Amino acid sequence: MYIVGLGLGDEKDITIRGLEAIQRSDKVFLEGYTSILGVSHERLENLYKKSIILADRNFVECQAEQIYEPAKDGNVSFLVVGDPVCATTHTDIILRARDFGVSVEMIHNASIMGAVGSCGLQLYNFGATISIPFFEINWRPTSFYPKVLYNRKGGMHTLCLLDIKVKEPDFEVMIRNRGNVQFLPPRYMTVNVAIEQLIDVENIEQKQAYDADTTLCVGMARLGQPDQCIKAGTMKELLHEDFGEPLHCMVICGETHELEIEFLKQFIVKGSKCLSYQ
Amino acid sequence: MYIVGLGLGDEKDITIRGLEAIQRSDKVFLEGYTSILGVSHERLENLYKKSIILADRNFVECQAEQIYEPAKDGNVSFLVVGDPVCATTHTDIILRARDFGVSVEMIHNASIMGAVGSCGLQLYNFGATISIPFFEINWRPTSFYPKVLYNRKGGMHTLCLLDIKVKEPDFEVMIRNRGNVQFLPPRYMTVNVAIEQLIDVENIEQKQAYDADTTLCVGMARLGQPDQCIKAGTMKELLHEDFGEPLHCMVICGETHELEIEFLKQFIVKGSKCLSYQ
Repeated sequence: MYIVGLGLGDEKDITIRGLEAIQRSDKVFLEGYTSILGVSHERLENLYKKSIILADRNFVECQAEQIYEPAKDGNVSFLVVGDPVCATTHTDIILRARDFGVSVEMIHNASIMGAVGSCGLQLYNFGATISIPFFEINWRPTSFYPKVLYNRKGGMHTLCLLDIKVKEPDFEVMIRNRGNVQFLPPRYMTVNVAIEQLIDVENIEQKQAYDADTTLCVGMARLGQPDQCIKAGTMKELLHEDFGEPLHCMVICGETHELEIEFLKQFIVKGSKCLSYQ
Repeated sequence: MYIVGLGLGDEKDITIRGLEAIQRSDKVFLEGYTSILGVSHERLENLYKKSIILADRNFVECQAEQIYEPAKDGNVSFLVVGDPVCATTHTDIILRARDFGVSVEMIHNASIMGAVGSCGLQLYNFGATISIPFFEINWRPTSFYPKVLYNRKGGMHTLCLLDIKVKEPDFEVMIRNRGNVQFLPPRYMTVNVAIEQLIDVENIEQKQAYDADTTLCVGMARLGQPDQCIKAGTMKELLHEDFGEPLHCMVICGETHELEIEFLKQFIVKGSKCLSYQ
């Protein structure tokens, strides 16, 4: 079983090693619930000359034998956006494959954890990565806040991965339709929503992990794709900036070095005062 | 000018996008002093059907116009092992290209900062990355120590990148030979030397950033290559383990989660007691 990283952009970001693995495979699955590429899966099929089976969370978690069984006496490719080892989900898939007696080969590729360096911030200066979930009326987890605080006190940058909701059951419609399974349209958190929530959390926790008026932040969208968008400024300066289509992510900066600022300059939003606080 | 990430393994780890960029290029340079691939540059030339100019540190720093001039009215590819944004050197190359009026396109790939997840440690749980330099008799910098301490206190893992010395002048021979430039053979730090130095530094600093007898560590070599080697244990347990050919790197673990240990188990050296301390 090959776990093949597809990189971040489009069908041409696959490696030659990855393409060869797919072409040797009897079945090809695409994991589609932790991240998305910039292109449809039909574009992938055209390049790979293989048909692709979409695997959503339910499929991977409840019907896993459909993936592992054919890998016992044939080749199977399981495609993931980014790199095979960048999401917890994929570690789990590898472990379960081994339980099924299936040997696994990982084929690496670019991931968001690396591509975030495109903004000029040095990767070795990042602390723990946080995930920001969509807040609900009665569910506003703030477990990421102490991590940002600790990173910032140590001068480290914080990569914030933003929530994705794909194939969420629409319970209201399901009640009206007597239990027929219906799904909500997919939701991808924007940098703007992430900042709103971050400001809310700072107002509640009040430990000065960051300051919406002075802390330098970088909002990014579609990293590694031709139309990637990078904008830097304070949280309040970025709050109403348009970053376009998903996926978005952002960085809350720690201490910045001269070379980092030199590179970041090109992305700073017009009229920003962020550099005067660094 | 394309800055093309080659990934970590061999010639087949290039992406299709990267290969197309090379084939559109009039000149192709390979940066060879911050990292190495598992194959010779002749293997790359055979696959790319292009001849490659090797660019060492001196060439990139002092004769940069030979790279940037042809990019003014043609295509140039500058190849780097791993990903274009993972090393400070490459940021500098991009900035200088812009000073020359050359537009730059980055083509991402897998990097060590991502592939380190192959051992099962979750990438979001890593703090700042450190670089461990070869100690000399009169030069034993320990600036990395407080970073490990801070990471560990915050429960975070620390990726340690190990020193590479390529094309270092051999001053003794040069004195004997009246100044003729001679170079020492390349040196790549092993996990074993890194551990020796780490133990030395802990004995000097004594702030319990880590404990050679109990702290879980992971030594890794040739990540992303078919013969990659991963071994986990305490520093003392790994001190005399053989990791084989370069490049090596290692991780000093912070707090480990159940899923991480579940995956790491397969790499723990025989007779290790490391898990009893976690």
